[in-house]
Amino acid sequence: MTVEHEPAAGRRAAVVCDRLLRALRLEPADATPVWFMRQAGRALPEYRAIKERCSLLEICRQPELCAEVTLQPVRRYGVDAAILYADIMLPLIGVGVELEIVENIGPVIAQPIRDAADLHRLRPLEPVQDVPYVLEGIRCTLGELRGSLPLIGFAGAPFTLASYLVEGRSSRDFARTKLLMYRAPDVWSELMERLAGIVSAYLLAQIRAGVHAVQLFDSWVGALSLDDYHRYVLPYTRSIFRSLEATGVPTVHFGTGTGGLLEAMRQAGGSAIGLDWRVPLDTGWERVGFDRAIQGNLDPLVLQAPWDVVRREAAAVLDRAAGRPGHIFNTGHGLPPATPPDQVARLVDFVHGFSRASRAP
Amino acid sequence: MTVEHEPAAGRRAAVVCDRLLRALRLEPADATPVWFMRQAGRALPEYRAIKERCSLLEICRQPELCAEVTLQPVRRYGVDAAILYADIMLPLIGVGVELEIVENIGPVIAQPIRDAADLHRLRPLEPVQDVPYVLEGIRCTLGELRGSLPLIGFAGAPFTLASYLVEGRSSRDFARTKLLMYRAPDVWSELMERLAGIVSAYLLAQIRAGVHAVQLFDSWVGALSLDDYHRYVLPYTRSIFRSLEATGVPTVHFGTGTGGLLEAMRQAGGSAIGLDWRVPLDTGWERVGFDRAIQGNLDPLVLQAPWDVVRREAAAVLDRAAGRPGHIFNTGHGLPPATPPDQVARLVDFVHGFSRASRAP
Repeated sequence: MTVEHEPAAGRRAAVVCDRLLRALRLEPADATPVWFMRQAGRALPEYRAIKERCSLLEICRQPELCAEVTLQPVRRYGVDAAILYADIMLPLIGVGVELEIVENIGPVIAQPIRDAADLHRLRPLEPVQDVPYVLEGIRCTLGELRGSLPLIGFAGAPFTLASYLVEGRSSRDFARTKLLMYRAPDVWSELMERLAGIVSAYLLAQIRAGVHAVQLFDSWVGALSLDDYHRYVLPYTRSIFRSLEATGVPTVHFGTGTGGLLEAMRQAGGSAIGLDWRVPLDTGWERVGFDRAIQGNLDPLVLQAPWDVVRREAAAVLDRAAGRPGHIFNTGHGLPPATPPDQVARLVDFVHGFSRASRAP
Repeated sequence: MTVEHEPAAGRRAAVVCDRLLRALRLEPADATPVWFMRQAGRALPEYRAIKERCSLLEICRQPELCAEVTLQPVRRYGVDAAILYADIMLPLIGVGVELEIVENIGPVIAQPIRDAADLHRLRPLEPVQDVPYVLEGIRCTLGELRGSLPLIGFAGAPFTLASYLVEGRSSRDFARTKLLMYRAPDVWSELMERLAGIVSAYLLAQIRAGVHAVQLFDSWVGALSLDDYHRYVLPYTRSIFRSLEATGVPTVHFGTGTGGLLEAMRQAGGSAIGLDWRVPLDTGWERVGFDRAIQGNLDPLVLQAPWDVVRREAAAVLDRAAGRPGHIFNTGHGLPPATPPDQVARLVDFVHGFSRASRAP
């Protein structure tokens, strides 16, 4: 793939609050940066009000509305980054895959991909034609942010996208996905190559539109053994990170249940590795290597606990990070709908205050 | 709890095939022992034939039938141990908890446990009165085995049992369970103490009835962070292993998704730690410590792959064990119903042959 008209890193708009970008470069900051996966969305009443009249796709397809939803958590929580409101399935919809995003279930694919004859449905992505509204949403959000905060773009990683395409919907055991891997390795590698191409084009387009960082969500890759990860996933994920290198834009590589995969995920790429709560942050970071940033890793359910539990568990995460530059505080997965917004705002204050105090001489 | 009439370890019936027991004592054996979680059950046509006329509970309540189902995989697969056909919910049914075991869903609890007022439903277990059929099933199976193979008994661990009792059925995020822990720590600790007492009495009764080893299934404990495991689970699990120590019977401590918990699970107890496939066996064993045995850890889905993939992935597990005494080959979780029995039998032969060859001078 030829990457044309790549903007130099320096051309990206500067931001006032640069904690996130400093952490991604392993530089010290005045406080630990904090944002949350799914911070834009279900936990916010102002989001649910919009959701009563618009579906997820309708929001994404209206750039002003997309920007509004993206900015709601920025206003409410005081986080250190905005993350574009979108869904990992958008580029697949862009290349013509028929799917629905069903409330409380997730993506449901009309005709799952099961063999070689299905692969033609995954043509290359032409971002400007296929997902113009995502790029417009980014520009609109950047306009609203006026350089106050960095904007994070994102995409689903090939394995996680493949799992939806093959299973037809979310799964507990990923049986069909793994059996495709094992039984038809050629179909699998072709599927993963096509997905890697789509994801790469999608992220490059987001970067061209101006996002300051991107996160690759390989949410379900923790279902695999290390050997299977190396054989069936790593080459494709690595090709995506390599294709982004020339842009200089920092990247986060995230998955859940990845306690057995951290070294391999580092190998695949990412300025930062995102951990879920199942790995203690200190040993997880040590395994990833202190020459990479680390993101995480409070159990998102904790935000529904009494405040003293939230504080205790958040302090434990920060203590394990030991004030080392390069820690981005986050939950270990998306915020559930039942998360009380006030607790999130209080947690952001706590993370800033606690980490600032720890840095004081 | 007073333990009466404890049989000395020496009184347990000797077995001809002692590979499993040798591995649990870290002693060398002629070949790596192998058995499978859920080896008795859904994958076998001779089991499904019985299941057409009897429910799981009806099988468990007829000792001869229970012994028959327990022995089916021994005949078919040539495994090195039998594991009693039973369900982790049996001791809870024994103390009067109303629940159903629903095909393809698992346990469904009529009235989930949600607060202090519900705890009285968990009275202490009196195994001889409450689960006589389990003990009779053990004696019957031992009679049929005639000392050819060891018989493994088992129980669910307090966290995993609690998760069913609190959620009411299986769960993906264990939200209610975690929120009970966080919001009502006193109720949680009382619940876990009662469950630990029940499990302990249940396993001691199985040991008195003659099982050669027991496995504690904490199948869902991998949902917790290390700090939460230490605070909310470890003391109760440890009390169970301590109560079994005087019997001298070896124990396996198993969970899935436990990549962040291995050192803590070792602390809680177990002659062996059971790993799922998400942790490479070599690094997992190193973290557990080579002074404990290790069990695992092939992805059970692999058994539905072509034979060359089964062989490759099984060899990778055996290579990671490096022929070190103390490895028990198993899948990383139960065999799925779609597992082809012929592949299982072939895998057993392969594990024996491969490991025997590796031991040859």
